[in-house]
Amino acid sequence: MQATARALCEHGYSRLRVRDIDEYFGKSRQLINHYYDGKDDLIEAVLKYLLEEYERGIAVGDDVDPEQQLHSYIQEFFYGPDIEDFDHWAFVTALIELRSQAHHYPRHQELLMENYLHLRGILVAIIETGIQEGDFREVDADMFANAILAVISTSRMRKVCLDDDEAVENGRQILDAIILPQLFREPDRD
Amino acid sequence: MQATARALCEHGYSRLRVRDIDEYFGKSRQLINHYYDGKDDLIEAVLKYLLEEYERGIAVGDDVDPEQQLHSYIQEFFYGPDIEDFDHWAFVTALIELRSQAHHYPRHQELLMENYLHLRGILVAIIETGIQEGDFREVDADMFANAILAVISTSRMRKVCLDDDEAVENGRQILDAIILPQLFREPDRD
Repeated sequence: MQATARALCEHGYSRLRVRDIDEYFGKSRQLINHYYDGKDDLIEAVLKYLLEEYERGIAVGDDVDPEQQLHSYIQEFFYGPDIEDFDHWAFVTALIELRSQAHHYPRHQELLMENYLHLRGILVAIIETGIQEGDFREVDADMFANAILAVISTSRMRKVCLDDDEAVENGRQILDAIILPQLFREPDRD
Repeated sequence: MQATARALCEHGYSRLRVRDIDEYFGKSRQLINHYYDGKDDLIEAVLKYLLEEYERGIAVGDDVDPEQQLHSYIQEFFYGPDIEDFDHWAFVTALIELRSQAHHYPRHQELLMENYLHLRGILVAIIETGIQEGDFREVDADMFANAILAVISTSRMRKVCLDDDEAVENGRQILDAIILPQLFREPDRD
């Protein structure tokens, strides 16, 4: 374990291998608790690396319409980026454990908050583009972003922590039936 | 700490004092991790006690209309029951920590799941009564219950773990502006 930690620190942020991260995050709370204190750089490096990977999976660009972008964003956050050897659910598990302890570690709290605001910013931008282009209704983009992320967050937590196999399906259903219909402009209304 | 744990075990479930629980749950993860293994009875007793206290705070009865019941349920789960000396947020913090580790402890997972299904059942019943009485639209009660609980759960988690002071306000806004309006029958429509 010491060896893994040293390897991660020595590799540095840009050269972290997915396998290292899996190994690092795969080892239950004992390991994570063990590395909490004073290992902020490591946690920061891993969070940043994975943030980039998640971001890469979101379809963007002028040729992708906001509705497609929104669906790819949601897909990415439910099921994770398509990286070889990457275990999305192991990462989500580790993230939830890290988060549940973050009130003891101001720096982790700060990192998780930055991380969240960054990812949330992407979602707000997608919604605002959709509104500008007339695809979406003129909603409060911040509020809808919060709502979408709340549903995804709870679904992931329930699947991972409570082994609730219906959680992801339930989350998608809430988005598809309650939240997204209020966002998309229906052709026959408004 | 040993003394507290012994006291809790000896008092038994029905005689747990709120102060004991506060003391038990107030002490960060070290304590909780310490008591995880083999302390299922204690965790079970504390969960059951608090479940009853939360439930007691929900207005029920034939003279309370479903919309009022729903509001009191939501109020209860955002802000906690009104028990003397009870720190709702300390309890939520402990619950989130317990949950984030539950995949290591099948019995805790089971208890948390039972707990959730019980509380969710109350919400489903309120919504179904509202539908029967014509106050609510004919929605999928399970799905709306999931949606309401997802928003509350994320708000509580964000407030406690990430020190996000806007989280509860944001959660209420999502319920009031996106989810509940689809549940309540508007006088001028349908």
